[in-house]
Amino acid sequence: CTDLSWWRGAILLSTGLKLLQFEKINKCSYDTTLTASGPKQGPTFQDGQRRVDYVLTYHVQKPQSVRRKTSRFADYRILRSLRRSLSTMRSGGTPPSKEDPEIAAHKHRLDYHEDDKRFRQTEFEDNLREVGLELEKDEGNKIPGIGFLKIHAPWNVLCREAEFMKLKMPTKKVCNVVERINLFIHKVTAPLHPKVEPNRPQNVKHLSHPFSREKQHLKFDLLKMTFTGITSLLGNGVYTAAYPLHDILYEEWASYSVFYKYQPIGLIRKYFGEKIGLYFAWLGVYTQMLIPAAIVGVIVFLYGCATVDNDIPSMEICDPRNNITMCPLCDRACSYWKLKTACGTARASHLFDNPATVFFSIFMALWATMFMEHWKRRQMRLNYIWDLTGFEEEEVSLCLCFGPDHHRAEYEIQVMQKTLKKQDMSPKVGLFPITHVQRFSSLVPLQIGVTFAVVFGVILYRISIRAALHMSSNPTARSNIRATVKGTAAVINLVIIIIMDEVYGAVARWLTLLEVPKTDKSFEERLIIKTFVLKFANAFSPIVYLAFFRGRMVGRPGDYVYVIGSYRMEECAHAGCLMELCIQLCITMLGKQLIQNNLFEIGIPKIKKLIRRRKSDMDSQQQEDYNMTLQRHEKDHFLGPFVGLSPEYMEMIIQFGMVTLFVASFPLAPLFALLNNIIEIRLDAKKFVTEVRRPIAARAKDIGIWYNLLRGLSKVAVIVNAFVISFTSDFIPRLVYQYMYSPDGSMHGFVNHTLSYFNVSDFQPGTAPLQPMHLGYEVQICRYKDYRETLWSNTPYDLSKEFWAILACRLAFVIVFQNVVMLMSDFVDWLIPDIPKDISLQIHKEKILMVELFMKEEEGKKLLRDNHTNQGPFQPRSRPASHAPSKC
Amino acid sequence: CTDLSWWRGAILLSTGLKLLQFEKINKCSYDTTLTASGPKQGPTFQDGQRRVDYVLTYHVQKPQSVRRKTSRFADYRILRSLRRSLSTMRSGGTPPSKEDPEIAAHKHRLDYHEDDKRFRQTEFEDNLREVGLELEKDEGNKIPGIGFLKIHAPWNVLCREAEFMKLKMPTKKVCNVVERINLFIHKVTAPLHPKVEPNRPQNVKHLSHPFSREKQHLKFDLLKMTFTGITSLLGNGVYTAAYPLHDILYEEWASYSVFYKYQPIGLIRKYFGEKIGLYFAWLGVYTQMLIPAAIVGVIVFLYGCATVDNDIPSMEICDPRNNITMCPLCDRACSYWKLKTACGTARASHLFDNPATVFFSIFMALWATMFMEHWKRRQMRLNYIWDLTGFEEEEVSLCLCFGPDHHRAEYEIQVMQKTLKKQDMSPKVGLFPITHVQRFSSLVPLQIGVTFAVVFGVILYRISIRAALHMSSNPTARSNIRATVKGTAAVINLVIIIIMDEVYGAVARWLTLLEVPKTDKSFEERLIIKTFVLKFANAFSPIVYLAFFRGRMVGRPGDYVYVIGSYRMEECAHAGCLMELCIQLCITMLGKQLIQNNLFEIGIPKIKKLIRRRKSDMDSQQQEDYNMTLQRHEKDHFLGPFVGLSPEYMEMIIQFGMVTLFVASFPLAPLFALLNNIIEIRLDAKKFVTEVRRPIAARAKDIGIWYNLLRGLSKVAVIVNAFVISFTSDFIPRLVYQYMYSPDGSMHGFVNHTLSYFNVSDFQPGTAPLQPMHLGYEVQICRYKDYRETLWSNTPYDLSKEFWAILACRLAFVIVFQNVVMLMSDFVDWLIPDIPKDISLQIHKEKILMVELFMKEEEGKKLLRDNHTNQGPFQPRSRPASHAPSKC
Repeated sequence: CTDLSWWRGAILLSTGLKLLQFEKINKCSYDTTLTASGPKQGPTFQDGQRRVDYVLTYHVQKPQSVRRKTSRFADYRILRSLRRSLSTMRSGGTPPSKEDPEIAAHKHRLDYHEDDKRFRQTEFEDNLREVGLELEKDEGNKIPGIGFLKIHAPWNVLCREAEFMKLKMPTKKVCNVVERINLFIHKVTAPLHPKVEPNRPQNVKHLSHPFSREKQHLKFDLLKMTFTGITSLLGNGVYTAAYPLHDILYEEWASYSVFYKYQPIGLIRKYFGEKIGLYFAWLGVYTQMLIPAAIVGVIVFLYGCATVDNDIPSMEICDPRNNITMCPLCDRACSYWKLKTACGTARASHLFDNPATVFFSIFMALWATMFMEHWKRRQMRLNYIWDLTGFEEEEVSLCLCFGPDHHRAEYEIQVMQKTLKKQDMSPKVGLFPITHVQRFSSLVPLQIGVTFAVVFGVILYRISIRAALHMSSNPTARSNIRATVKGTAAVINLVIIIIMDEVYGAVARWLTLLEVPKTDKSFEERLIIKTFVLKFANAFSPIVYLAFFRGRMVGRPGDYVYVIGSYRMEECAHAGCLMELCIQLCITMLGKQLIQNNLFEIGIPKIKKLIRRRKSDMDSQQQEDYNMTLQRHEKDHFLGPFVGLSPEYMEMIIQFGMVTLFVASFPLAPLFALLNNIIEIRLDAKKFVTEVRRPIAARAKDIGIWYNLLRGLSKVAVIVNAFVISFTSDFIPRLVYQYMYSPDGSMHGFVNHTLSYFNVSDFQPGTAPLQPMHLGYEVQICRYKDYRETLWSNTPYDLSKEFWAILACRLAFVIVFQNVVMLMSDFVDWLIPDIPKDISLQIHKEKILMVELFMKEEEGKKLLRDNHTNQGPFQPRSRPASHAPSKC
Repeated sequence: CTDLSWWRGAILLSTGLKLLQFEKINKCSYDTTLTASGPKQGPTFQDGQRRVDYVLTYHVQKPQSVRRKTSRFADYRILRSLRRSLSTMRSGGTPPSKEDPEIAAHKHRLDYHEDDKRFRQTEFEDNLREVGLELEKDEGNKIPGIGFLKIHAPWNVLCREAEFMKLKMPTKKVCNVVERINLFIHKVTAPLHPKVEPNRPQNVKHLSHPFSREKQHLKFDLLKMTFTGITSLLGNGVYTAAYPLHDILYEEWASYSVFYKYQPIGLIRKYFGEKIGLYFAWLGVYTQMLIPAAIVGVIVFLYGCATVDNDIPSMEICDPRNNITMCPLCDRACSYWKLKTACGTARASHLFDNPATVFFSIFMALWATMFMEHWKRRQMRLNYIWDLTGFEEEEVSLCLCFGPDHHRAEYEIQVMQKTLKKQDMSPKVGLFPITHVQRFSSLVPLQIGVTFAVVFGVILYRISIRAALHMSSNPTARSNIRATVKGTAAVINLVIIIIMDEVYGAVARWLTLLEVPKTDKSFEERLIIKTFVLKFANAFSPIVYLAFFRGRMVGRPGDYVYVIGSYRMEECAHAGCLMELCIQLCITMLGKQLIQNNLFEIGIPKIKKLIRRRKSDMDSQQQEDYNMTLQRHEKDHFLGPFVGLSPEYMEMIIQFGMVTLFVASFPLAPLFALLNNIIEIRLDAKKFVTEVRRPIAARAKDIGIWYNLLRGLSKVAVIVNAFVISFTSDFIPRLVYQYMYSPDGSMHGFVNHTLSYFNVSDFQPGTAPLQPMHLGYEVQICRYKDYRETLWSNTPYDLSKEFWAILACRLAFVIVFQNVVMLMSDFVDWLIPDIPKDISLQIHKEKILMVELFMKEEEGKKLLRDNHTNQGPFQPRSRPASHAPSKC
């Protein structure tokens, strides 16, 4: 019995429920669980014996609609004829003639809608009973207005279905090559493994019969083709919700105290199905891969800290002997300033802007490739362990639907309504709401436009606040100008990002709904792509602005660029915008993660749960008592519904973007991500186990579209990092100075080299500072950061030769960096095989065993036939030969 | 009978021959062929009835070794003990003790080698007879010293094996959706289709039973694991050659007169197997895709021709009023020259260097992506039509081997020899000849070095020839200097390329042999990669030199760069090196294709055939008569062996490189390639059908490593084209001049802008021209093509601001071009689904049919069991349930 682990599923099928769960629960352990917790404790029927496998909920019928009950068959007849006429139209036939008197009834369809629901419900339940499932109704006993349909699948039904489906059965044991190193590693990492040991270490894997796979697929197809779905019942409102029940809380997973342990992926997959299992496996791999990235990031940061005192440019800036007077940072209100006041910023910049950063961004580009490869291998391994190798992607379906080819209920309803409407007006228009698609797809660019407008608004805020603060006479306000502006702006950005994130999520859903995609799969994909574009633009536009546009098109003293009347474009401090980029990244990452994780993922579900309870109008004491009396399925009813994995993935993808895209400017990003993810895993686990109804197990072979998005991001990351290093940081100008212009090959004189001269008499009228004597002496010539011709050249203030030389070097660096890193990534990709060596070996071995089995089978057959016919040695196997000649 | 097309294979197995052929010949058509040609005409046994399916040849034993025949069992005993001791060693046992007297015999192993061969041969033949194959020997009847072993597989053996292997059997017809458009297209293109109509249009495809696939694989595995191969027999020299026979010449394919028609791919695959079928399908797709590329290329070229008279820069160069004196092109020997003498080159350059070229290289980058996508779809379609969808890549094997995991015969021999040698000396070294690998892999860089040395030699040749010609007093020689130098250099390059190509092919093979790869698959891959690297470097290094290095590091007048003593680096004519690049590309493409195709692919096999016949010492009349008496299998013996597809693919890949990599400089490349390929297809067809022995059918699902190489090339092409446009052509300088420097926004003055000034008094001593008065007047200031500071600036001859600005623009263009084109390629890639819509529909339909079949089968089974047991409705299908409770 210990050997035989049977596929067990709450397999409710034949009339509408698909194979809802593919749990492969060890029969023995399952029985033990039941015994341990006592038969009364588990969610069972009234008799306390039969287990509740699945629950459907529905609104209990209002009394006034009872009178219609008698006429439900007449109504059904009308509906049937309606449908018939629709199908005639769809197949290109003529629209039904006006003579048909029953067609006129469609205007009253809302009236008999309720009855139709009722009828379909009864029909559905009858069908369920017919296939051997046992049902129990629990109508409005404790929760008014809501009826529960509890479903129990008896053991013999499950077995029959399992046999019928020819689900993979263990036929023979295969022993893995127990590698000593693996065992050693396992020993060392033992404390990291969760205590769910029966599954680990998996040295014994059952050989699954591959032939059965084929039949399994056939069964899927059969179901897909033959029956209509629970989805359409749900969509039509016959049932209000459908969910299997929560079984056990896993202390070894959904708890913060085990954050350092591996996840019990096998158990998660058993409980939630492959799709959610893959999500957590992916999250695990991602988190694991973040550890080396975080370590290297910290080392790079520490290198920056260690070398900050040896950095000649910041020493030059901080040196009071270099008495450099800078031009004012804004018109009129600002005055001249001493470069050495930027000393702090310059030193801080060095922490993030040093040669190690270049190394780190190359490292991170390769890291991204390694991560993708590592995940591919892990996925392959999981596919093998979970027996998904023969499972085709086609079968993937989101929660409760019949697979990608099945039309969504909403789509069917829409089409039906459309057709009815069209039929009244003119029969010339097609069935598909193309106009909707065209009209609303154009909203996406609009939304992105809104995002940019928000960014621009924040920029304007910063400019005006800064000017206002400069203007104020309060000296403390003045001294805190920079910090105040930067801090408030970043926080405002963060708040806007978070608010817009929610807005965009809703907008994307609304847009996709308006498009009325045909299938659930296309619905999901469209929604993901829209959400991704909007949320990504939202999260990254302020960062992109800071990295690539801030301080670029400012013009020069005496010829500044003005936007919208009189707003001068923002300048960067001397050490570049890198510092501000860092602050922005830091605040966005930390804030987004903290707020979205804590507030939205924990807080809001709690509030929702509270509100849902509040509706039943009881005080807390009553609530307590009431809770005690509630059975499991009734408790679960109060949990929020499972909304899919998209939000979880989306959050992680945005984080992955932060980690890879701008890693050149913020080496600590992987560390932040790592810390967040360690919490995130347990948070999600908690949420899935306790906060939402248990999702229906869905099969999946891979993480789908998310993989493509990750790949795309890691490709974009290369070019973005190349630009950050060459344009945002001072890396290239320093190199160029050192090797082309420096008189002694050192960095001495670099700061002077980057500063151009400006004659204060060249200020445009009305832009000169109001307080020219602010520094205590009269300024004749001030300096500004740019490469421009000197005052005494023929063309003063023109871009200088140095500017073009440095620009060429920056661009050359981008080309070299991008192509070298891409080449290295491709090489790494090529170097690491997609299928782990041991898995391919294993598959090969299984094949050999299969051959043995097959040969024995053949031998047996041959013997049998030999005994029957007593012919020559070759005859029994040459059946085709005996047929073919007779035919030709 | 017309419906039933049986798998027929010259299935010679069980003792060493793998499934040699997987031809799926329609039994009926096959019979007809036999009848039409008469039973006596076909290659048959002596009785004129039994068809020869396969031929093995071997050297007939010399008389003196007959005495050994008696002792062959004694020798065999020695060999056995040798092997036993070897296996002991391999399994880590102690080396055999010195006491064993038989071991001492291994020093004489060359003596009994012949006998061993003989013994193994007899053993092998006995085994063949045992499985029901019929053999006939033809020992030295007509061709002295060579024996033929003709093998006939009787029909019942074939049928038995087919049944045993459960090869895909047609079980039910499926009708395609006969799309009207397709039919119309088919009608229009009717004359283009080859007249092998039974295969086309394939509206009826037999539904193949997927279950049988599994078993087929099992059979493969079985064979792979259980038996040793004919390869080792061949490798050991027991047999000298193994080949099936040529059947029919396809007039509808291997003839130049049908060059405009589609290829009968189905028939090719039937005759040669999937691997060669895929090659020709790929070649067909490539040629087809070249048509639009060639058309657009010609249009671009014609645009250049049409606009050449409106091109302001070349007008300025040709205008005699612009009396510009240029600096000498070489030291001392050359003198000053007038810019207008470069008029012809400048006008010719415009043909290839105009804005349309930029469009064309973007077009070609997308074309390459489209081509890859188109091929992927075509491959998918062929996989479906050829029933390869379930076939796993693992099974692919080159010609006669047991699949990738089977050790190559040479490897086994090597290891055996090594072991014996090691045993004599010291038993501490491992079995694998690692030292070889390490020693000789380092030769590849060396070879590339040789290639570059050759290129450099040609450069030196050009420089010296030019100087010599300048020096000569003959005026006609002088006037033809440019043409002579360019022409001879290109031809010399071509000759060197072609010679080195052959050398490198041999070197790559030699290197790979020295590495002694373990399996045939790894052997093939290593060989391909080595050959590709060497041949590619060989073909492209002169082109790369011309495109990117020529005229770059020449220095400036008065400060030229000298290499190896006194050779000044070559300069380009005013219009850039693009023209020379064009000539080089043109000559390389045309010459390589003409010489390699005609000389090597047609000529050399003919010569080889002649030589092989000459060996039999007869004059031509005798030869004729002799030929008449020869039977089919004897004639085939004189044909060359099939050497694999690698050379054919290699040639095409190099051509693909020429077409995509430097298309920006030579828009006519696709046209040349197209013309070549139209001939190439028929040439290869002729070669395969008439010039070489019929290759053994090998299965393949895709074109393997070649696809990766193509992908790599099309990626590299983007960046190479970006560099060609921005650095080799004058596109960017023109744009920059027009928008940054031109006083009136036109191109007027561009030529003057590109030329710097040089004061002749600044010539280094000994470099001034010997004939300063060559032009008839004294030159004070001459011009040279470069962006440098003017004479009257502070830093004359320094790189000017314009230089850096243009460099920055060039680099920016590279970045923009590369990323835009890559993005567009990815978009095209994403847009076009990998599986054609109709094929995926078809697969889906087949699945539905399979479900129907399966359901019927299940029903039948259920009925049967119901009758047997007479149990309840659920019991019959719940066998596992009845087992499980009894176990638990």
